[in-house]
Amino acid sequence: MVNLEDYAKSAFTVDNIIFGFDEGELKVLLIKRGVLPYENQWALPGNFVYPNEDLNAAANRVLLELTGLSDVYLEQVRTFGEVNRHPMGRVITVAYFSLVKIQGYELHGTSPLSQKAKWVSIAEATNLAFDHDAILEACLNRLKRRVRMRPVGFELLPRKFTLTELQHLYEAILQPIKKIDKRNFRKKILSMKILVDLDEIQEGVAHRPAKLYKFDKDKYEKFIAEGYIFEL
Amino acid sequence: MVNLEDYAKSAFTVDNIIFGFDEGELKVLLIKRGVLPYENQWALPGNFVYPNEDLNAAANRVLLELTGLSDVYLEQVRTFGEVNRHPMGRVITVAYFSLVKIQGYELHGTSPLSQKAKWVSIAEATNLAFDHDAILEACLNRLKRRVRMRPVGFELLPRKFTLTELQHLYEAILQPIKKIDKRNFRKKILSMKILVDLDEIQEGVAHRPAKLYKFDKDKYEKFIAEGYIFEL
Repeated sequence: MVNLEDYAKSAFTVDNIIFGFDEGELKVLLIKRGVLPYENQWALPGNFVYPNEDLNAAANRVLLELTGLSDVYLEQVRTFGEVNRHPMGRVITVAYFSLVKIQGYELHGTSPLSQKAKWVSIAEATNLAFDHDAILEACLNRLKRRVRMRPVGFELLPRKFTLTELQHLYEAILQPIKKIDKRNFRKKILSMKILVDLDEIQEGVAHRPAKLYKFDKDKYEKFIAEGYIFEL
Repeated sequence: MVNLEDYAKSAFTVDNIIFGFDEGELKVLLIKRGVLPYENQWALPGNFVYPNEDLNAAANRVLLELTGLSDVYLEQVRTFGEVNRHPMGRVITVAYFSLVKIQGYELHGTSPLSQKAKWVSIAEATNLAFDHDAILEACLNRLKRRVRMRPVGFELLPRKFTLTELQHLYEAILQPIKKIDKRNFRKKILSMKILVDLDEIQEGVAHRPAKLYKFDKDKYEKFIAEGYIFEL
C-alpha cells in the first residue's frame, strides 16, 4: 500500500477566466494582487482551495471574494501543473472559465488578496502574474473554438441585440482571422432558426436603426434534438 | 503573504482513459489493481504524480508502468477533486484520454500496482475503483462530442478501412442514439473530400468486398484552412 504522506505535499488553486464584451471589445476580468507573491501585479482572480472544499465550490468562492461576482456559471477548462509554475512550491491550478454580461455585475471584492478588480481588453491583458498569460491564452483558444460550435456567444450580449452586434462579437473573439463576411454570417445564423425577430428596432442610434433579435434556447434545443449542429 | 504549508497537503494522481475499437465494439483499457486500496478491483490505469514531475510527463510514465503502452497521444480532459473521492485522504486526479488502434499495442505493465491490463467493452466497464465510473462517463461523453466535430475517429481504425467500418465505429461510440442513416453518412463524409479512395477492395471477406479508403490529414487541414468545419 502506498504511503500517502510521501505524495500529500502539493497545494492547489483555482483560477477564473471571466470573459466579457463591452464597447466592441472582448475583455477579461483581472485583479491587482494585494499580497506576495506578485504583489501589485495584475493576475487572474484565483486562490488556494481549502483542504475540505470541492473544486467547483472553491472556484465560486474565490471569484466572489476577489471580485464580488456571484451566480456565474463556471466551467473547468484545464489544469496547469508545471513543476515550477509557482514561486513558493508545488502548486497545481485548475482553470475555470465563464462568459458574462459585463453590465450585469458590480465589482467589489472583499479579500486582501485583491486590491481591486477591473475589466481589461484582451490585447492589454499581458505580463500577468504566475503563468497566467499562458492560462489566459489557453482559455481564449477554448473560447474561439467554443463560440463557433455552441451558442454561448449570446451570454456576452444584451438580451436584445442586432445581427451587426452579434457579428462584431464574433469578430472581437475570433480576431485576427479575416473579417467575417456579413452576408454569409447573417445567412448562417438565420438559417438555424434559433433567433427570434422581436419586431422591434434599435432606439437612439445615429445610423438607420436595425432590427432587434433574441436568442431562443428552446428553439436551439429543438434544433439540436433534430440532429443539426450549431456552426458559425 | 500566505503560508503555503497550510495548503500543501494534497496529493495528485493522473488517470488515463484509453479508448480502442475492436470487433465492432468500443473498448477501454483497464487494470486489475495489485495493491490497496481497491486491491483486486478493476480501475483506470492511474497513479500518483511525483513532487518534481510535470502532469503530462506523469500521465505518460504511469500509463507505461501500468500497461506497457508508450508513444500514445494523451489529452487532458478534466480534473476530479471531490473531497472524499479517495479513501486515504485528499487526492485530486487529472484525467487524460487517448484513442489508439488496439492491434498496435502489447500489454505488459511493470508496476506492482497493476496485476494485469486488459481491453474491456464499454458496457462491461462498470463498478470500477474510486470514482472511475464517473471519470469514464465524462470521458466517454467527451469522445462522443469529439468524434462528431473532429476527425479523431480514424485513430481507432486500421489505416485502410471501408465506409461501413467507419459507420460501425460511429455507431459504437454514439450508441444508444438512433442508428446512423447509411446514405446520409456516406454523403456527408465523402462530401468533405478528406478521404482517399485507395482503388483497392477488401480481401478475404464472405460478402461482396467493399472499397477501401484512408483518411488524409493534409486534405483535412486544407479543408479546415478554407473555413469549413468537420461534422459527422
